[in-house]
Amino acid sequence: MTTLTHFSEDGRPVMVDVTDKAVTRRQAVAEGAVVMAPETLDRLKAGTAKGDVASVAILAGIIGGKKTSDLIPLCHPLPLTKLDLRIEPDEALPGVRITATAVTDGKTGVEMEALTAVTVAGLTVYDMLKAADRGMTIGGVRLVSKSGGRSGDWRRD
Amino acid sequence: MTTLTHFSEDGRPVMVDVTDKAVTRRQAVAEGAVVMAPETLDRLKAGTAKGDVASVAILAGIIGGKKTSDLIPLCHPLPLTKLDLRIEPDEALPGVRITATAVTDGKTGVEMEALTAVTVAGLTVYDMLKAADRGMTIGGVRLVSKSGGRSGDWRRD
Amino acid sequence: MTTLTHFSEDGRPVMVDVTDKAVTRRQAVAEGAVVMAPETLDRLKAGTAKGDVASVAILAGIIGGKKTSDLIPLCHPLPLTKLDLRIEPDEALPGVRITATAVTDGKTGVEMEALTAVTVAGLTVYDMLKAADRGMTIGGVRLVSKSGGRSGDWRRD
Amino acid sequence: MTTLTHFSEDGRPVMVDVTDKAVTRRQAVAEGAVVMAPETLDRLKAGTAKGDVASVAILAGIIGGKKTSDLIPLCHPLPLTKLDLRIEPDEALPGVRITATAVTDGKTGVEMEALTAVTVAGLTVYDMLKAADRGMTIGGVRLVSKSGGRSGDWRRD
Amino acid sequence: MTTLTHFSEDGRPVMVDVTDKAVTRRQAVAEGAVVMAPETLDRLKAGTAKGDVASVAILAGIIGGKKTSDLIPLCHPLPLTKLDLRIEPDEALPGVRITATAVTDGKTGVEMEALTAVTVAGLTVYDMLKAADRGMTIGGVRLVSKSGGRSGDWRRD
Amino acid sequence: MTTLTHFSEDGRPVMVDVTDKAVTRRQAVAEGAVVMAPETLDRLKAGTAKGDVASVAILAGIIGGKKTSDLIPLCHPLPLTKLDLRIEPDEALPGVRITATAVTDGKTGVEMEALTAVTVAGLTVYDMLKAADRGMTIGGVRLVSKSGGRSGDWRRD
Repeated sequence: MTTLTHFSEDGRPVMVDVTDKAVTRRQAVAEGAVVMAPETLDRLKAGTAKGDVASVAILAGIIGGKKTSDLIPLCHPLPLTKLDLRIEPDEALPGVRITATAVTDGKTGVEMEALTAVTVAGLTVYDMLKAADRGMTIGGVRLVSKSGGRSGDWRRD
Repeated sequence: MTTLTHFSEDGRPVMVDVTDKAVTRRQAVAEGAVVMAPETLDRLKAGTAKGDVASVAILAGIIGGKKTSDLIPLCHPLPLTKLDLRIEPDEALPGVRITATAVTDGKTGVEMEALTAVTVAGLTVYDMLKAADRGMTIGGVRLVSKSGGRSGDWRRD
Repeated sequence: MTTLTHFSEDGRPVMVDVTDKAVTRRQAVAEGAVVMAPETLDRLKAGTAKGDVASVAILAGIIGGKKTSDLIPLCHPLPLTKLDLRIEPDEALPGVRITATAVTDGKTGVEMEALTAVTVAGLTVYDMLKAADRGMTIGGVRLVSKSGGRSGDWRRD
Repeated sequence: MTTLTHFSEDGRPVMVDVTDKAVTRRQAVAEGAVVMAPETLDRLKAGTAKGDVASVAILAGIIGGKKTSDLIPLCHPLPLTKLDLRIEPDEALPGVRITATAVTDGKTGVEMEALTAVTVAGLTVYDMLKAADRGMTIGGVRLVSKSGGRSGDWRRD
Repeated sequence: MTTLTHFSEDGRPVMVDVTDKAVTRRQAVAEGAVVMAPETLDRLKAGTAKGDVASVAILAGIIGGKKTSDLIPLCHPLPLTKLDLRIEPDEALPGVRITATAVTDGKTGVEMEALTAVTVAGLTVYDMLKAADRGMTIGGVRLVSKSGGRSGDWRRD
Repeated sequence: MTTLTHFSEDGRPVMVDVTDKAVTRRQAVAEGAVVMAPETLDRLKAGTAKGDVASVAILAGIIGGKKTSDLIPLCHPLPLTKLDLRIEPDEALPGVRITATAVTDGKTGVEMEALTAVTVAGLTVYDMLKAADRGMTIGGVRLVSKSGGRSGDWRRD
């Protein structure tokens, strides 16, 4: 079994040395969802007329995605060139689906930036609706695809 | 249907005015999980001998929980007096279960602090194991219980 | 002439010692404006149908106001209990008027929090419209009123 | 009328995708002023002998300019290679004039960095003198010139 | 041997639970020094005529002290009511001596705030003089005294 | 005597203009120590069985090193590609020795990143052991070597 990349031989946590990796175009797409009571989703959609929960959460996700290396201890700082979030209501959940696409030209990937953007957006949806529904669940936060870098492309089946 | 608390009558996003609320003991417990391939969980457990994924993720969760009002746009700043995280392997998932307990004496609750701590810990678990398993999912992030404040106690059934 | 409060006798910058001041209710209202070409204001108002410049700027102002003690070197950290921003189009400028109200119970005032919220909101309006109009001016950023604390109430004539 | 660059077709706030833009030398100059009572300006100038308001404000402006992408929600992170602030007393205002020059090699401009540096410096001047004069106004915050990038050079007439 | 306060029984890092501690006046004084070549100290002193290394470092120390709970993972957030730094040249070192006094009314002490302010000030002195002298050493960073709290007063002999 | 690089001709603090410097591989190694009572070192080593002081401090140092340009006012933002910390007990001190290696490809050096990582790790060691020993001293924080850039290589004799 190979060792974990974020620990040295002697067990110290390490920021992986990416100094000698090539700068290439890196992209990652992540997704997640906030599952809520049907009436909470109605409230979110009705609320949109007066103040838009999704817009606030999208903005929070963008700001959060830019803070990724500040939040995830062993993450490298990376200047994102694109960070695009979408939040769509889904009656079948019921709740909202969140998708984030992050892109940069860098020496390491942007999976954590996409995942962080999704979770911060999800937490913000929770915050704005929690007075109505404390039982909401944030879930299904996962990578959809990544491209670029030595490990190549990856796509969830 | 009542309006959303985080928007004004005319639809502006607002930080809820808590000026006249009483300072009371506030506690919140949140939970979540990172689901992974069985061999990734083995790796995490084997890795613990050489460098502890759970310790790094707990620390990240504590740091993240302290940043809650910086991450969630309409959250009030609150000085936490306790923030306690646990991460336990669970073969049945397979993966790890994360729990966070946040406490303060304040004018508003600490649900978002507990939920933020759980998600940042979950993202950090993902980051440290992603070279082995990109398919992990962070999910089941939800409030377990809260106490204190005008809205009283709440417990997930 | 009295000395400046933010320097010691020997000229060192100091954070004013507020240890022995009483905790009282502190409120401050600040205002400012972004002046723009008439067609830029039309664009902002038309844009509102598709994406709301004012909502993004309000959110930025709230987040910025919470960061005040991080931005203004000699400002004390203060946990705001209310931070309310308004942005209104004004054909007469032409442009938008921004108002912020900050409240806390603390040992020192919240004037800087209200002023910081207004300026960050103004900068965000500029950022979102700058592709259309680089000539916009942010101005008239000033305190409208304050209350609480030993220096008492103050109101712009 | 063209749509706003910071919103998608369907009205979501977006960080503009600059992935495919060329890295070029970007420069921006911004200016602003703090207008104050004549005796406050005297105090600032006299104060300079014992502790320098302008130096503290310049430093705050530099620190603030480095935080631009943290303050302005849809701003890209950019590593500045130069950030130079000047603060000059001007009896005619009366008050101080603030100028900031920001430079980087990047895919997007540094106008917001220069403007943010000016406003944080202005807020810091206000903070340090507010005990003497609550009526000061921060104004005239605007871009003087920019160069670099696809949109080319721009200079205020 | 007693266990370490920052680890749980089972070895998890924990933020110490201070929920039930009394709010009392807390003060801490810390000190440190930057030792440098005699000609570097001359340069610092000569430089003071044109731009003041000590003022910049004092300001950096104050800003850094306010960030303590953001830097030290298991530190509680505490709103400082006083943070006072002094930097004095000392020919005998040769170099500068740095002292910081931090005060708050809180449930836990401010030793880390005073120590963090001293080290950030020391690092800033190094940064400003490093082009002249890369061999400087920051040392002797230690607590001088603390008062308040259950553990009572402490003073270095 | 040459002027200080961080001040302009007229004494303003400046971020050095590195716009026209070449991007080269930059490396810096820094070291420091925390000196403590022999029984505190025993406690640290015994504690390692239950919860690892060194791991927490290493993580804090990595996070702190990434925040360097946020802490040191005139430091340029730099995206580190490697940041590696080691903490070793040393009976002879008695205490722990801390070493940090920082690397990037950039226009300016990473000495401050390495030194900041060492000091934040040292402060964190202090924080975790202070309940047992308030008399610990952080010292000997200094540059060991640097390479890259116009000023060339440097190594402590």
